[in-house]
Amino acid sequence: MRDLFHEELDSITADHIRMANLVHDAIESATRALLNADLQLAEKVIADDLSVDNIQHALDDRTINIIARQQPVASDLRTLVSSLRISADLERMGDLAHHLAKLARMRYPVSAVPEELKDVIFEMGVAATRIVEKMVVVLEFRDVNRALEVDKDDDEMDILQRKLIAQLLNPEWKHSVETAVDMAFASRYYERFSDHAVSIAQRVYYTQTGEFAPKA
Amino acid sequence: MRDLFHEELDSITADHIRMANLVHDAIESATRALLNADLQLAEKVIADDLSVDNIQHALDDRTINIIARQQPVASDLRTLVSSLRISADLERMGDLAHHLAKLARMRYPVSAVPEELKDVIFEMGVAATRIVEKMVVVLEFRDVNRALEVDKDDDEMDILQRKLIAQLLNPEWKHSVETAVDMAFASRYYERFSDHAVSIAQRVYYTQTGEFAPKA
Repeated sequence: MRDLFHEELDSITADHIRMANLVHDAIESATRALLNADLQLAEKVIADDLSVDNIQHALDDRTINIIARQQPVASDLRTLVSSLRISADLERMGDLAHHLAKLARMRYPVSAVPEELKDVIFEMGVAATRIVEKMVVVLEFRDVNRALEVDKDDDEMDILQRKLIAQLLNPEWKHSVETAVDMAFASRYYERFSDHAVSIAQRVYYTQTGEFAPKA
Repeated sequence: MRDLFHEELDSITADHIRMANLVHDAIESATRALLNADLQLAEKVIADDLSVDNIQHALDDRTINIIARQQPVASDLRTLVSSLRISADLERMGDLAHHLAKLARMRYPVSAVPEELKDVIFEMGVAATRIVEKMVVVLEFRDVNRALEVDKDDDEMDILQRKLIAQLLNPEWKHSVETAVDMAFASRYYERFSDHAVSIAQRVYYTQTGEFAPKA
């Protein structure tokens, strides 16, 4: 039978997965809201971000409480400190989906994304949800091989960002500077979202192996 | 006489101040490198960011070690957890100065900043260094009144960012989309830099008062 301490660690992981599922849905919906100028969906993402923040606050309090009560040392303490960082990363991923939804809302009833960029924004949304899905497996099963894959997926996200920026800088770009700035920021939000997923995967890798993940 | 635990807390604060001084110099130099297309200075900021990262790693190890040895509870434990978060914020501020320096390097020998935007970028640089200077006072003297001022300074940074973006979107904007995208990203880096300073000030406020800082 598992002891109380390990049950508590499991319950922290369960909350991380809850947060991860929320940010997964948030980035997916934010992408749809951006592409389809869907105001209702954008408003939902913006409102739902509060749930992620609330889980984080309660979870961090609980985690600090576990440290105080159990007085763990060595690897158990490192795991708990790492949990606090993982919840901070997840909270920030929620913020970034929220930023994308606000961009959709700001340009409503027009789509913030011009036709020529719809493919690449769609692909960034798909890449972001795929990364979160892998990250959930990493969190749930402490899967270090999958943790390394998250890093590779992030490289793909960087490629998509460069592709998007190249389209903005193409001499044939026919939209406004405002649209270019919107899209530059949007690409930055996806890229940072993905960076935080990598950071979470690397923390799990380190907690499991005691070593830093090799660069992809 | 202070006990060992409080001496250890003081030494953590001393490291935070060392990091803060480094990011202060980094954002100041990055701004000059951007404005004057100063490649040597940009390279220095990029190289020096490693020192901030190194202090953070050593400090975090030490902080976790203090938690393991001293097994603090209640407010002492919260202070230590908050210290870990402060060092993460400082490390990120270093990254953002680094991003600005990389932008200066990427556009060298031309200044990344067109003439019309030199004033506002200069002002953002001044605002960023002023915020770090106040943040150092907050860290060193646990000054909660000064912590509230950091939040007001951040509002000024937001105003400067809006001013810069408005200039990009002005129909009279005569530079390339590339320059607009560069400047949009630069303004974002200054704004995020300032956000992290606010976050640090708020953590000190919370640690000192047990309450969240009121919104400015």
